Amino acid sequence: MGLVIRQLGKSDCGVVREILVASAAFSEEEVCVAMEIVAEGIEGGLDGPYPAFGAEIDGRLCGYACVGQTPLTVSTWHLYWICVHPEFQGRGAGRALQSELERFIRSRGGKRIVIETSGRGSYSRTWRFYEAGGFRNCGRIPDYYRPSDDCLFYYKEI
Amino acid sequence: MGLVIRQLGKSDCGVVREILVASAAFSEEEVCVAMEIVAEGIEGGLDGPYPAFGAEIDGRLCGYACVGQTPLTVSTWHLYWICVHPEFQGRGAGRALQSELERFIRSRGGKRIVIETSGRGSYSRTWRFYEAGGFRNCGRIPDYYRPSDDCLFYYKEI
Repeated sequence: MGLVIRQLGKSDCGVVREILVASAAFSEEEVCVAMEIVAEGIEGGLDGPYPAFGAEIDGRLCGYACVGQTPLTVSTWHLYWICVHPEFQGRGAGRALQSELERFIRSRGGKRIVIETSGRGSYSRTWRFYEAGGFRNCGRIPDYYRPSDDCLFYYKEI
Repeated sequence: MGLVIRQLGKSDCGVVREILVASAAFSEEEVCVAMEIVAEGIEGGLDGPYPAFGAEIDGRLCGYACVGQTPLTVSTWHLYWICVHPEFQGRGAGRALQSELERFIRSRGGKRIVIETSGRGSYSRTWRFYEAGGFRNCGRIPDYYRPSDDCLFYYKEI
């Protein structure tokens, strides 16, 4: 048992949605967009537009992430979504997902990863996760998502 | 005659492509993506995903721009492409396009515009155009498009 990272499959969609809702980090609209991307990611598999991975702890899917090659770039990828169920945070699932994503992206010729995330204070744990994982903040667009909700850019060379 | 800003129509596609190629700022792949977006923009019209406008000087289409509401944001728009034929630069077509875009975006409830552009030195005239037009640089992702080709972010509240 323990911690396992694996590709997401069609039967995971319901649990992914539960994880997104439980995280309380996303609006209903954001959850809908995230689910569209996950569905496309699962459909397309590892060669599709949004390869998607899940983290299992003791056989239970508790986190997921999806990535994609950034259009019009040679070797840049976006980490579109990474989310771990709050009850399972702090047990290495997020970091294991990150490691597997980086390994996968490198295997596809990717050289750097970009993340766009919210500047709201409730995301401070998320920023620390990225920074401890080697990401650097490289920009901020004020009021991007909505008034008082900036967009922060992070990137990491891999 | 003089300078006119108008919506793009289907019969403009060939000239738009000529403008992009003549600008020498874009790779063949970038021209293809720009043309896909223009085609979608023309198809969808002002209520579609990529409203597209053209600038005419003395009856000749010499520049164009297309914008779109930024997904997952309340009132942010992207200026995806703005390009003026080199032979017509410096005659106000770019600035007139910008003014019309801002008027249009405000009319749709947009409150700010984001631009992503290249950090290559050959874009210095472009940066000056944005800065003189009220845009502020708010980020840089190193080696984003390709090695030694950073992405610069600009934004403006309107």
